[in-house]
Amino acid sequence: MKLASLKGGRDGRLVVVSRDLTRATEASTIAPTLQAALDSWDQVAAPLADLAESLEHEAVPSFRFHEHDAAAPLPRAYQWLDGSAYVNHVELVRKARGAELPASFWTDPLMYQGTSDSNLGARDAVPVASEEYGIDCEAEIAVITGDIPAGADAATCIAAIRLVVLVNDVSLRNLIPGELAKGFGFLQSKPPTAFSPVALTPDELGPAWSGGKLALPLLTSINGRMLGCPEAGEEMTFDFGTLLAHAAKTRPLGAGTILGSGTVSNRDPDGSPGRPVAEGGRGYSCLAEQRMVETIRDGAVRTPFLRFGDIVRIEMKDRKGHSLFGAIENRIEPQLLAGGGR
Amino acid sequence: MKLASLKGGRDGRLVVVSRDLTRATEASTIAPTLQAALDSWDQVAAPLADLAESLEHEAVPSFRFHEHDAAAPLPRAYQWLDGSAYVNHVELVRKARGAELPASFWTDPLMYQGTSDSNLGARDAVPVASEEYGIDCEAEIAVITGDIPAGADAATCIAAIRLVVLVNDVSLRNLIPGELAKGFGFLQSKPPTAFSPVALTPDELGPAWSGGKLALPLLTSINGRMLGCPEAGEEMTFDFGTLLAHAAKTRPLGAGTILGSGTVSNRDPDGSPGRPVAEGGRGYSCLAEQRMVETIRDGAVRTPFLRFGDIVRIEMKDRKGHSLFGAIENRIEPQLLAGGGR
Repeated sequence: MKLASLKGGRDGRLVVVSRDLTRATEASTIAPTLQAALDSWDQVAAPLADLAESLEHEAVPSFRFHEHDAAAPLPRAYQWLDGSAYVNHVELVRKARGAELPASFWTDPLMYQGTSDSNLGARDAVPVASEEYGIDCEAEIAVITGDIPAGADAATCIAAIRLVVLVNDVSLRNLIPGELAKGFGFLQSKPPTAFSPVALTPDELGPAWSGGKLALPLLTSINGRMLGCPEAGEEMTFDFGTLLAHAAKTRPLGAGTILGSGTVSNRDPDGSPGRPVAEGGRGYSCLAEQRMVETIRDGAVRTPFLRFGDIVRIEMKDRKGHSLFGAIENRIEPQLLAGGGR
Repeated sequence: MKLASLKGGRDGRLVVVSRDLTRATEASTIAPTLQAALDSWDQVAAPLADLAESLEHEAVPSFRFHEHDAAAPLPRAYQWLDGSAYVNHVELVRKARGAELPASFWTDPLMYQGTSDSNLGARDAVPVASEEYGIDCEAEIAVITGDIPAGADAATCIAAIRLVVLVNDVSLRNLIPGELAKGFGFLQSKPPTAFSPVALTPDELGPAWSGGKLALPLLTSINGRMLGCPEAGEEMTFDFGTLLAHAAKTRPLGAGTILGSGTVSNRDPDGSPGRPVAEGGRGYSCLAEQRMVETIRDGAVRTPFLRFGDIVRIEMKDRKGHSLFGAIENRIEPQLLAGGGR
């Protein structure tokens, strides 16, 4: 089934969305919010699935679903962990910083915890105080889990995956080197993250969901121009089960934990770190990679980071070309300085 | 006023606690949970204060308050940020790792985001898989905020502090060097944090709360033996307003954000990094500091990290000797490996 949270209140209002994303029906008699549904998944999953089936058969009252009415599936979440499963991305970004890739990065996942109390909806603006921060997108896949006990293994973790979403992990590249040099990881350099309009149970993905990976291309464009279409199922060094087990080594993961894959990234078949879409390559899921490849190939960066007014679009389609999660479409906007409310 | 969340359900049940911590009264007709109260603070603060006043005058039904019945004030929170306001602690810990303290650490706060979806209650056991992880406590003060817009200044942030709590930031010292070397900060090395039984509005602290600092000694003992009693109002390089403004630079902070001070730490009046309580000093709020001082003074570590069965007690008393927040008292226990529920 496909679930969304319509805007309204701090936690939105749970609806079930039709497979083709055109219609929705209220789910609040089953659970008022997605967090409430995740808290009682064993009780609500079957009634929600029945409702989704009824919606497909037009057997329940429904209304037009507009992606721009959707908040993030979890407008606020108790945990957002972001891994770096595509080591090609990590290698490129480190090259850009002049840093070597330790061999352990192929066996021990990178992961940090980021802000999740103010998640952005799919069509929300991304407010940033200054273009000088080096604004970038990162297109990712993420999973939302049920309860996972501390010390759980990868198989247990995969079984606890309730939903799959797309993510725009907004990154402020020029703030990253200073923060990482301090040794405590990202804080100011990772502002709130945006999420796809709709969250899917893994069964909606059919055979594309297998072994804790999602084997479909992730499409990213900037101002209508394709930036990348890498295959998310390829070169994912750590599947979601492995990533979740890494996180759960010393902590339980509560229902509603969101864990991201990191920037989806493919090497070029010729072995080079990735070719632009315009040259027939699969391109990139963030501007930092494109800039790095330019540096390697041309000795100079040609692509600027995002500017105010730029629009980042992230989407995934099935092999027949149907949008699965709806589209993230975030416009970068100047952040109004504090003083007013939120 | 003093608020607590009695155990039960994922978010506990809000009660108002008497100033002397002996009695409590149900607050659920005003707000069912502390998070709900923080979400609507402008509406509920006055009714809760009235209820607290009635409780003091025995004008409402009440029951015996037992600290061991208390969950964390926020059993799960949307954000837990931990700063390092006591730079003496940072300097000592880095010395222990053989690393220099950059001059910028006196002006630019260290901060990371940690797990907050499974906060521990004051008397909960702290489950850890292995003593080999190097189990340590860190006694801290933390604040819980209302909504703070991105870009807010320190004064705005201080005005948004709703509650003050004590914290035991459990740390797995032997996992830290490996994680920090990866560059993304703490993840596995910082398991769930424990909180004092009771949260106080800043006005309950009287003149001890001033300028975004809490000027009272923080008492830590291990197995009944005093480890430290540093003055939390001294040598706090960054007050809570400054720490919150640092966090809010590129993100809003949603109601219920918890921000910690980092390990409370004082230098010795003679300029040395700190003297043990047994020698008349103010001691330490974590074992890592004691071990570092032993290394500096004696050339060898004598104090082991925590072992299964050890009990960490953290408390703060007013100048008359009355416990303000109740006591954190966590027993370190072997973590049962996954398979069963949580």
